[in-house]
Amino acid sequence: MKKEDAIRILITGGTIDKEYDPVTGELTFAKSHLTNMLNQVRCKVKVVLEEIMLKDSLQMRSADREGILKRCVDCPEDKIIITHGTDTMAETARVLGKNLKGKTGVLVGALIPYAFGASDALFNLGCAFSAVQTLQEGVYITMNGKIFPWDHVRKNRESGEFEET
Amino acid sequence: MKKEDAIRILITGGTIDKEYDPVTGELTFAKSHLTNMLNQVRCKVKVVLEEIMLKDSLQMRSADREGILKRCVDCPEDKIIITHGTDTMAETARVLGKNLKGKTGVLVGALIPYAFGASDALFNLGCAFSAVQTLQEGVYITMNGKIFPWDHVRKNRESGEFEET
Amino acid sequence: MKKEDAIRILITGGTIDKEYDPVTGELTFAKSHLTNMLNQVRCKVKVVLEEIMLKDSLQMRSADREGILKRCVDCPEDKIIITHGTDTMAETARVLGKNLKGKTGVLVGALIPYAFGASDALFNLGCAFSAVQTLQEGVYITMNGKIFPWDHVRKNRESGEFEET
Amino acid sequence: MKKEDAIRILITGGTIDKEYDPVTGELTFAKSHLTNMLNQVRCKVKVVLEEIMLKDSLQMRSADREGILKRCVDCPEDKIIITHGTDTMAETARVLGKNLKGKTGVLVGALIPYAFGASDALFNLGCAFSAVQTLQEGVYITMNGKIFPWDHVRKNRESGEFEET
Repeated sequence: MKKEDAIRILITGGTIDKEYDPVTGELTFAKSHLTNMLNQVRCKVKVVLEEIMLKDSLQMRSADREGILKRCVDCPEDKIIITHGTDTMAETARVLGKNLKGKTGVLVGALIPYAFGASDALFNLGCAFSAVQTLQEGVYITMNGKIFPWDHVRKNRESGEFEET
Repeated sequence: MKKEDAIRILITGGTIDKEYDPVTGELTFAKSHLTNMLNQVRCKVKVVLEEIMLKDSLQMRSADREGILKRCVDCPEDKIIITHGTDTMAETARVLGKNLKGKTGVLVGALIPYAFGASDALFNLGCAFSAVQTLQEGVYITMNGKIFPWDHVRKNRESGEFEET
Repeated sequence: MKKEDAIRILITGGTIDKEYDPVTGELTFAKSHLTNMLNQVRCKVKVVLEEIMLKDSLQMRSADREGILKRCVDCPEDKIIITHGTDTMAETARVLGKNLKGKTGVLVGALIPYAFGASDALFNLGCAFSAVQTLQEGVYITMNGKIFPWDHVRKNRESGEFEET
Repeated sequence: MKKEDAIRILITGGTIDKEYDPVTGELTFAKSHLTNMLNQVRCKVKVVLEEIMLKDSLQMRSADREGILKRCVDCPEDKIIITHGTDTMAETARVLGKNLKGKTGVLVGALIPYAFGASDALFNLGCAFSAVQTLQEGVYITMNGKIFPWDHVRKNRESGEFEET
């Protein structure tokens, strides 16, 4: 397997990587849990992890999205998973979808942090792993067990779920 | 969405559904955790759950595998996930792979029970969900983040991992 | 065992009973987890559960503390555990300590919600169970594995820990 | 605080410290989880950890119990917690109870391993922490939220619970 056959995981933050600070009582970022997650699930696919930022996606600006796009374009792999907050995941998907050519990008996150009990993080990550390995070039979101193309998806803020548009 | 567009999940047992009996100190089956798993991960894909058996896959006989095949053939859905013990998962995959036509079947299980801490169950299930929705007809195993066609996979008993053959 | 030989648990809220709301991304109260906690730990002591309120202890006012005191005085049991937020636990302990006579009251809470991974809730609750059954009349706090009398304890806001004064 | 004011925790094994081996599918001992447990619960009591053995208590022989007794007698601390399998916990308690003078010893274990979901381990350990700090000299068992003197306790093998005799 050549290096470029690996899956690159670009970490950008979001609920999936948040944790609870017992002193302040607030949700915060300390460090990414992706390495722990991959160890827990005994992942044997070759993966290259790259932390771009650890941000709540409501705090992301255009420059952040451009930075994510640039890393997708520049990295040697053509299978890319992007962990991302759910609130603006669809917006970043549109930036990537319009501009990323010849690669498969899958955005994924969680409604409940991996570090908490009863999280959806590992299931969603599993959905992203199969999707990025099987889908043709293009940009997708895997949430709620579904696979959405970048130009037909939004988050329903009332329910927290992703839905087709 | 027509009923036959749903994913059918055939439950057959395996480590993924085992739990610990604190009185006997042994691993055992009580009832399947698939409903709890799908609720936890906020799955919004239409799913039809069917429990065929709850068996350790070392206890499965030819008749069991024929029964699983028959349910795959007879059910109205053409996207089928089969939860299964890992020890003979590859053997059941071969029975299905040789005989199931015009449908996509994905076998999946876990090395550590869903009910325990630090399980690989939800990740593997997520892999199966995307695989069954994206792959052409055929029979596959999704374990360790990889997707294996039924005729090129075995479990390495030393490491517990699945590998290409 | 007469009814008054049971342990009364007065539930007032606090981090121990908080949970994460995946739609708003905030910590909130839904319902108390005390019943689940006692079931999980196979508690066989007779317990009477009473939910007085579900409040963040920073929101508690004098009337709330007076209400807790009144329930301690009026209930038939003389062994009382009070679950409470940590931020003003010492303040409520002082109100109870000065006014509760002939009974043993133990305040307890958690730095990390029971519903999250890696919580201190069950350990602290265990400390309270033994303390309330072994200590003479008086009011105490059990946190960090220690037992503090009501008039010599404060929470260190920097570290989140309780310490002697 | 002098060294002898600390709590000594003698680790002997038992379900509380067992874990699941995903390759063999069996419960086994790897290393004690006591350090992780004390970190998780933010214990601030001074503790001296000593691993004597990691055994299923059904495998314990008289020499094992004599060895535990000897460590209780010889260690400088007079507050001692002994983690122990539940099946013969009452038997070891009798050996200690008849022979340990001038110290407080509390035996504790779990029906479900700490490493699994929904364990009773942390609650039971909390019960032991308060008991060892508050009780007069003697030997006790803390299980199911109760405190039993060594000469009036047995495990009910049908229910898995400890009860007065």
